[in-house]
Amino acid sequence: MKIDRQRLAQSIEDLGAIGATPRRGLTRVALTDEDKRGRDWLVARMKDAGLRVTVDQMGNIFGERAGTQALPPVMMGSHADSVPTGGRYDGQLGVLCGLEVVRTLNDVGARTRHPVMLVIFTNEEGARFQPAMIASGVLAGKIPLEDAYNARDKDGIRLVDELERIGYLGAEPCVPRPFRAYLELHIEQGPFLEEEGLSIGVVEGIVAITWSRLTIHGVQDHAGPTPMRIRHDALVAAAEVISRVRDIATTIGGELVTTVGNLVVQPNIVNAIPGRITMSIDMRDPQDTTLDRARGMLDTAVREACEKEGVTYELEHYWRVPYTPFAADVVAAIERSAKTTGAGYRRIISGAGHDAQYMGAIGAAGMVFVPSRDGRSHCEEEFTPMDDIEHGANTLLGAAAELAVVEGA
Amino acid sequence: MKIDRQRLAQSIEDLGAIGATPRRGLTRVALTDEDKRGRDWLVARMKDAGLRVTVDQMGNIFGERAGTQALPPVMMGSHADSVPTGGRYDGQLGVLCGLEVVRTLNDVGARTRHPVMLVIFTNEEGARFQPAMIASGVLAGKIPLEDAYNARDKDGIRLVDELERIGYLGAEPCVPRPFRAYLELHIEQGPFLEEEGLSIGVVEGIVAITWSRLTIHGVQDHAGPTPMRIRHDALVAAAEVISRVRDIATTIGGELVTTVGNLVVQPNIVNAIPGRITMSIDMRDPQDTTLDRARGMLDTAVREACEKEGVTYELEHYWRVPYTPFAADVVAAIERSAKTTGAGYRRIISGAGHDAQYMGAIGAAGMVFVPSRDGRSHCEEEFTPMDDIEHGANTLLGAAAELAVVEGA
Repeated sequence: MKIDRQRLAQSIEDLGAIGATPRRGLTRVALTDEDKRGRDWLVARMKDAGLRVTVDQMGNIFGERAGTQALPPVMMGSHADSVPTGGRYDGQLGVLCGLEVVRTLNDVGARTRHPVMLVIFTNEEGARFQPAMIASGVLAGKIPLEDAYNARDKDGIRLVDELERIGYLGAEPCVPRPFRAYLELHIEQGPFLEEEGLSIGVVEGIVAITWSRLTIHGVQDHAGPTPMRIRHDALVAAAEVISRVRDIATTIGGELVTTVGNLVVQPNIVNAIPGRITMSIDMRDPQDTTLDRARGMLDTAVREACEKEGVTYELEHYWRVPYTPFAADVVAAIERSAKTTGAGYRRIISGAGHDAQYMGAIGAAGMVFVPSRDGRSHCEEEFTPMDDIEHGANTLLGAAAELAVVEGA
Repeated sequence: MKIDRQRLAQSIEDLGAIGATPRRGLTRVALTDEDKRGRDWLVARMKDAGLRVTVDQMGNIFGERAGTQALPPVMMGSHADSVPTGGRYDGQLGVLCGLEVVRTLNDVGARTRHPVMLVIFTNEEGARFQPAMIASGVLAGKIPLEDAYNARDKDGIRLVDELERIGYLGAEPCVPRPFRAYLELHIEQGPFLEEEGLSIGVVEGIVAITWSRLTIHGVQDHAGPTPMRIRHDALVAAAEVISRVRDIATTIGGELVTTVGNLVVQPNIVNAIPGRITMSIDMRDPQDTTLDRARGMLDTAVREACEKEGVTYELEHYWRVPYTPFAADVVAAIERSAKTTGAGYRRIISGAGHDAQYMGAIGAAGMVFVPSRDGRSHCEEEFTPMDDIEHGANTLLGAAAELAVVEGA
């Protein structure tokens, strides 16, 4: 049993056209009109494939292919939202490979003991509503539904209102549900598989992640007549923090990564000393203890940088997920399937958070990685060769078939 | 002959209400609806005072009080636009004190040999359309009208289209015109007068200013799975530049001030490595040679910071004005008038650019400063005590009366 490479390539082309950027990237941010169009296309394809489609209170979309027994399903899925000016593989590929697995099972008339279920999670990226992975977080019982509903984008619009507006505020409760396994195929978004010439990453777990928000209050003033001696420049303090956030990774080393990705200056004009800065700090490591150490260093760096410039601040560590090991039996099933494809593979730890992280907290989860050219993602240049995608989809197919137990196979 | 303190205070209150922020600041950015309302209010008051009002091609507003002879006018003025979340004194006060001088001349039925003319310049702040002081720049023949018309705000809207939209695209040519003197009262926006307990600054000249724009191109990527060793983070390079821009002022010392006031991150989300940064660098010093040295240090700092992070950049030095000394006879007239008021005064150099800078390039100009509490400006906390404003307005009145030559005085 093999997936249909041509059909899968066409799906990638078709879904990628919805919200496409001029340079073959993707801007399909969560709960925008483009997201609605992408969802509508996917729901239509799921129905074409005979799936029973339901939508839950967080707009997560489920499509069930019945099993022969009353057992919990084998779920496959990912997300269909993108970052602004992102790529057409991140998230999309996992959804489309899951769809391709369903279509392949249909092609051969395969009957499985467990139902096979495709799932599309809402707002995985966190580009519009924070935190990221908010909808799988609610499903896993880690984020209160009320909090998620009240998440606001930068224009103050509430998540729940946008869910309703685009017609994806479903009735099904968004609560923990039983499943035999949750399988997510995703692009690696890092350089390792490509560097080693491999097609498949068998993901053992997801790094621990901490997100912090820093607000620095300086004294806004005119850039001309204000002598240096009386300045309290919020951006000068922020620059020191940015440098020291980089230093934290250099000092600790290993697999720790640290990033300041979001920074907003007020009033943000040429001739005014910045009065207020808000910025994000993202830190990740496979070891929770390393992240504890990094966070301690961050606290010190912020305090010292702000004291030096005579500015005040608030530093909020508002989101943290521990290292998430995936279920041993699911990882083993994925590894067996990868081996069967004949493609090169290795075990790997994910540096990115994924919905599989929350799913792993309430059941047996695992992930299949495929390579990212130059390790790049969250950009228009994001690309995975079709050969690798084919190997990945077949790995997903094999693992799903094994875990759902194909009858008469 | 003394100005009417109560009437002037009321004008400040009335104009300050148009575009007022909750904390008694002002957001009346150039050529917005608020700017139009402010202009309309001022034009009505100018007409009430018997002035003949004209508007030129750049939306500069002129109000003439006839003289007894065919001589060039004594001009008084400033600007009525503000920075976003700015104060109610910057610019506004010069216009209103000029209006108060006219009203006072009217009260006593004074006849002057030279006409006395009030002028309100368009878009002095440069908060919306760059460069700053664009309209006095065109009037002085330093900026081509075509360039000014095509200046675009951050939404791509052209200055000329906004001039037309708010009804201030006048017919009068915006070209150099003869004047006996240009007098501008303005808040100091620095700490010196207040620190020394003085009411009046007799401004000898305006510092040299250079504005540069830096664009840094890094590699946008996912903040999770991208190991530190392959990163090219535009914001890390920008942070190094910000620190070194501060260091330039510290190293050279004296009166040099350096500021990064504007910085924009792309894509600006928590979990993406910044791919592009645009930022401004503002540097000012009374000595042109010091500014040359600072600019050389900036070139080196940017090159080294970007090389270190492996990112590319464009650095554009797009605006520069040399040190502008004011006309000796005008400065002397202001000083005599300041002395007459009995208030404490000193000579001072302006750290901020003003329309008087361009006016000084085509005629005899001078400025009167009044103190800024805590040296603060371009913020809601901007404040000047009414006692100082009264002394300042009387200084302006005395200088205008002397230069316009009151008959029978």
